[in-house]
Amino acid sequence: MSDNPSFVLKGVLDVEIQQKPIPEIDPNEVLVQVKKTGICGSDVHFLVHGRIGDFVVEKPMVLGHEAAGVVSKVGSRVTNVKVGDRVAMEPGATCRKCEACKEGRYQLCPDVIFAATPPTDGTLARYYRLPSDLAYPLPPNLSLEDGAMMEPLSVAVHAVSNLGALRSNQSVAVFGCGPVGLLCMAVAKALGASRVIAVDIVPSRLEFAKAYAATDIFLPPPMEKDESRVEFSMRNAQAMKEKLGIADRGPQAIDLVLDASGAEVSIQTGIRIVKSGGTYVQVGMGNPNVNIDMFVVICKELVIKGSFRYGVSSFFTLGSIA
Amino acid sequence: MSDNPSFVLKGVLDVEIQQKPIPEIDPNEVLVQVKKTGICGSDVHFLVHGRIGDFVVEKPMVLGHEAAGVVSKVGSRVTNVKVGDRVAMEPGATCRKCEACKEGRYQLCPDVIFAATPPTDGTLARYYRLPSDLAYPLPPNLSLEDGAMMEPLSVAVHAVSNLGALRSNQSVAVFGCGPVGLLCMAVAKALGASRVIAVDIVPSRLEFAKAYAATDIFLPPPMEKDESRVEFSMRNAQAMKEKLGIADRGPQAIDLVLDASGAEVSIQTGIRIVKSGGTYVQVGMGNPNVNIDMFVVICKELVIKGSFRYGVSSFFTLGSIA
Amino acid sequence: MSDNPSFVLKGVLDVEIQQKPIPEIDPNEVLVQVKKTGICGSDVHFLVHGRIGDFVVEKPMVLGHEAAGVVSKVGSRVTNVKVGDRVAMEPGATCRKCEACKEGRYQLCPDVIFAATPPTDGTLARYYRLPSDLAYPLPPNLSLEDGAMMEPLSVAVHAVSNLGALRSNQSVAVFGCGPVGLLCMAVAKALGASRVIAVDIVPSRLEFAKAYAATDIFLPPPMEKDESRVEFSMRNAQAMKEKLGIADRGPQAIDLVLDASGAEVSIQTGIRIVKSGGTYVQVGMGNPNVNIDMFVVICKELVIKGSFRYGVSSFFTLGSIA
Amino acid sequence: MSDNPSFVLKGVLDVEIQQKPIPEIDPNEVLVQVKKTGICGSDVHFLVHGRIGDFVVEKPMVLGHEAAGVVSKVGSRVTNVKVGDRVAMEPGATCRKCEACKEGRYQLCPDVIFAATPPTDGTLARYYRLPSDLAYPLPPNLSLEDGAMMEPLSVAVHAVSNLGALRSNQSVAVFGCGPVGLLCMAVAKALGASRVIAVDIVPSRLEFAKAYAATDIFLPPPMEKDESRVEFSMRNAQAMKEKLGIADRGPQAIDLVLDASGAEVSIQTGIRIVKSGGTYVQVGMGNPNVNIDMFVVICKELVIKGSFRYGVSSFFTLGSIA
Repeated sequence: MSDNPSFVLKGVLDVEIQQKPIPEIDPNEVLVQVKKTGICGSDVHFLVHGRIGDFVVEKPMVLGHEAAGVVSKVGSRVTNVKVGDRVAMEPGATCRKCEACKEGRYQLCPDVIFAATPPTDGTLARYYRLPSDLAYPLPPNLSLEDGAMMEPLSVAVHAVSNLGALRSNQSVAVFGCGPVGLLCMAVAKALGASRVIAVDIVPSRLEFAKAYAATDIFLPPPMEKDESRVEFSMRNAQAMKEKLGIADRGPQAIDLVLDASGAEVSIQTGIRIVKSGGTYVQVGMGNPNVNIDMFVVICKELVIKGSFRYGVSSFFTLGSIA
Repeated sequence: MSDNPSFVLKGVLDVEIQQKPIPEIDPNEVLVQVKKTGICGSDVHFLVHGRIGDFVVEKPMVLGHEAAGVVSKVGSRVTNVKVGDRVAMEPGATCRKCEACKEGRYQLCPDVIFAATPPTDGTLARYYRLPSDLAYPLPPNLSLEDGAMMEPLSVAVHAVSNLGALRSNQSVAVFGCGPVGLLCMAVAKALGASRVIAVDIVPSRLEFAKAYAATDIFLPPPMEKDESRVEFSMRNAQAMKEKLGIADRGPQAIDLVLDASGAEVSIQTGIRIVKSGGTYVQVGMGNPNVNIDMFVVICKELVIKGSFRYGVSSFFTLGSIA
Repeated sequence: MSDNPSFVLKGVLDVEIQQKPIPEIDPNEVLVQVKKTGICGSDVHFLVHGRIGDFVVEKPMVLGHEAAGVVSKVGSRVTNVKVGDRVAMEPGATCRKCEACKEGRYQLCPDVIFAATPPTDGTLARYYRLPSDLAYPLPPNLSLEDGAMMEPLSVAVHAVSNLGALRSNQSVAVFGCGPVGLLCMAVAKALGASRVIAVDIVPSRLEFAKAYAATDIFLPPPMEKDESRVEFSMRNAQAMKEKLGIADRGPQAIDLVLDASGAEVSIQTGIRIVKSGGTYVQVGMGNPNVNIDMFVVICKELVIKGSFRYGVSSFFTLGSIA
Repeated sequence: MSDNPSFVLKGVLDVEIQQKPIPEIDPNEVLVQVKKTGICGSDVHFLVHGRIGDFVVEKPMVLGHEAAGVVSKVGSRVTNVKVGDRVAMEPGATCRKCEACKEGRYQLCPDVIFAATPPTDGTLARYYRLPSDLAYPLPPNLSLEDGAMMEPLSVAVHAVSNLGALRSNQSVAVFGCGPVGLLCMAVAKALGASRVIAVDIVPSRLEFAKAYAATDIFLPPPMEKDESRVEFSMRNAQAMKEKLGIADRGPQAIDLVLDASGAEVSIQTGIRIVKSGGTYVQVGMGNPNVNIDMFVVICKELVIKGSFRYGVSSFFTLGSIA
């Protein structure tokens, strides 16, 4: 049984379709015939750079982790799905034994086996095995493409709801209108945000955001030649406040800022634009070394949170859509 | 009635003892004859630089805000203290009307009148007026000097307990062994921390910390010539982990890091040394622009909190000491 | 100045319109010409029974505390409103000095002066004085009647949002379709609840609830002759689960139960119907002695919260409606 | 391989030592030779009544779940322990797949397999199998008897720390001086409680509590003939307040009450004695139907929590004792 064509990253900008053995499954696992896999920014990053921070591709690896498919085989103890079921696939198999797993923060499990994070193969293959509870049956009204979207959607739910703790009627600003930024806006809207401000430097992305989930958009002014990024972020924040009528406190204040861009200027501006006592969530990864104004962090008593993948979130909500 | 000699900051490095009128008090206020005032780093900063960030001394101002004294006059509605009482003085009179005040975060009140924060006069004067509930009677076993220490102690209680939420049996590292850092260590010890690590670049300060409240001390290695601060912080964190047996998770991990130094290298090291899923509290102010490794913040899902002055904290606990 | 006709409760079922002096105001207070006052269940209770628990009417007292009006006079330090402004009136003037006030739970202030809670006069008078920050300007699109509704609405916001911490997409059941129960449903709906179940023993009330804010309604079966209330509550909970498809866990579970009836059977049923790990909020007052199944409380690790009046809530949100 | 003598409960007050097969283990499991098992109140309850609430003994069952022993066999994938290790045994094997498990509240897992909870056999046998991560290596300074105590100690840690969230310097009252009550006092003391009040009706138990971990003890007055339990609880609470100088607020108030007795009068008294805004945790099971004064619950905005077994708690702390 080895008819399992797979999309393998062999080195920087070096990929190939290879035949790989069809995985054997354990009693609690299922084998899924993958039908859809979204391409994540991290896949592209591994392709182009061969690494993301400490995650380094050291041997050939199958890419892909945003996936859905059809169950083709189930282990002897599996009861939640059966052969033929259409399922969304959660790509991180955690150890279920460590303190992080038991405390409800499995995203911090040090022994997680995560699709297409080195050295684990991903879902861009005909077959993928995973623990049966990570295969979530799709309700009839969701397509396999919707199913593949559950993974990036979980990232957004985790950032906006679990960490950002957005409540109905609050205001949120999202920096970066890529896929994750847009999904953060969609989640904020679904959670009842009164205002969802989209920020990006590409006008067409802002137009899409406005049509999709944002209530307001902001296009930063161009950076000036003799201006540092810190100076620019101060001018940018001021321009944003004036254009959108943003205050530091009260009903015109921004309760929550999410950065899905990873850009230093966005991060600096976001920290200046969030309200006194507000929350800032970093969900996008860019250059790791970011200059932050700790004076602002202190005087506004900000809470800055890093958001990594997701915990118990969107995948579980599939049940309530059915 | 104008015999109220006061220590006035007129400009950078320009001070003078001046006579000022004795303040009139409202029905809910008391007049305190100040007996002790500690000198805060911020007093020195205003003296030397004339400003701290956005707080700028634009006209002559009396310095001092860590104070205790004896009640010399009470307003017509005051019931909690009487003339002759020895009291610790909380130096920030908040508006009690805004959302921050009503939500229990009065440190974020935009209309606070705070001693020796421009343009408000401070406590380095013979007399100081304040709302009666901000005058806390000292139990007999506390001296007036102890009373003056209540203000910086409140800063530490706020950072370690309110924001850091330190629980008994947790581990904490404190960067900076100045007065606030030392008080943070004392509070951590009093809250039952199993390990209190002191970090400073001055050996004699570390020795004092060890004798006072720290269980462990760490003297960073010297920075090398060709090394950036980021590189140094990585080496420093590694050296600290090895010397003190610090792990990223489990019983050897650091649950909470507080920075009371404001130094960029300390901040960078603190973020690297705190455990996965841990909390970092910034209590010291230094250079506002600090380079932070957001990759670490994301992958460990850190929570970074700015700590500003204090909320309902130490001052209220005076009652339980009595 | 004594033209201040007031509706005075002299004793049980003994009321009278009396002239009372027009109140003098302090520098931080306003005098409001009351235009609308809603009649609360507590007003009726004082009228009929002369007491509610430990709150006993011992001398004549003006009733009413759900009120709105027009500012007729402002104290010398008032800046937030001016004569002629239409305002909603928050009826509880707290001390602003105690630990409860400073911690953000002013509803627990032991020294609160609350309209129509003995011995304080209420708002059923031509004039009422209150601290200026408790007079909230009404936006143009809200009527004075809307303004008078802000007080019971705050009760609902406090129970559902502050204590119940309802999140978007959660399910809630509300026992009792009186004014507070209905407002709890409206708040739950506004916060994005996916399901709002109304329970009452009066069919016409259920119909109103359904037309107003509930997604589901439940009319309990009649209690049988030989049945204890405990037995009935078990049968009632079972019938409710079957009729509405309620489960103990997962997407069909009830995340939050609020009781706005105070009836023992409702409380008992509510505790049985809420999900494992769920939250139950008691907002209605009835007979104080209620039989509760602690075995259920333990095995589901329920959290039961008493809800008293309100904290920082609806009144502040008036600003965001404008 | 069937030499596995086991203490079997066949029916009410009907027990027998039987030979049972030695369990087979899975790759992730270990077989432990049980050396010590404590006798829990629930074991006695099953023995005498054959049931605890909905948990009914319907076929013969081995008793015991507070146990420690020596690893005699390990599955093929086990790495955390080896044959010969002395281990404390966590008796509840949860599913690790459901929302409760993944959210960090595994005590609410509906599919838990718990030793000596029907129909699962317990640890009063020569051999017991369990998932390897539930076998916690004992540090050298802890005896096997200490190891068997980890289970009831976890109950106390969960009630006092996880649910009660006791902070250093707070006051706590514990009703009931049986094993769990005493351990709650010990945990409160270890967490830095400033005051630990023990309440019981047996003077010798109070003496033991005082010598063990309590700072204060209270022996309720005798109940009078014509007095209801509600009336008695009011008199009892008043006597307790007077004798021990307990206030409703401030430094003399009780922040946290735990009931480890399950007795109705204790529960009623506990709710009256806890401070305004305080927390009450029910850890002991008695008669399920308990009369509670909801008027007190509302006016003090109490939070009442049911405590069921334990979550991530003491067992994990074994590592830090080593």
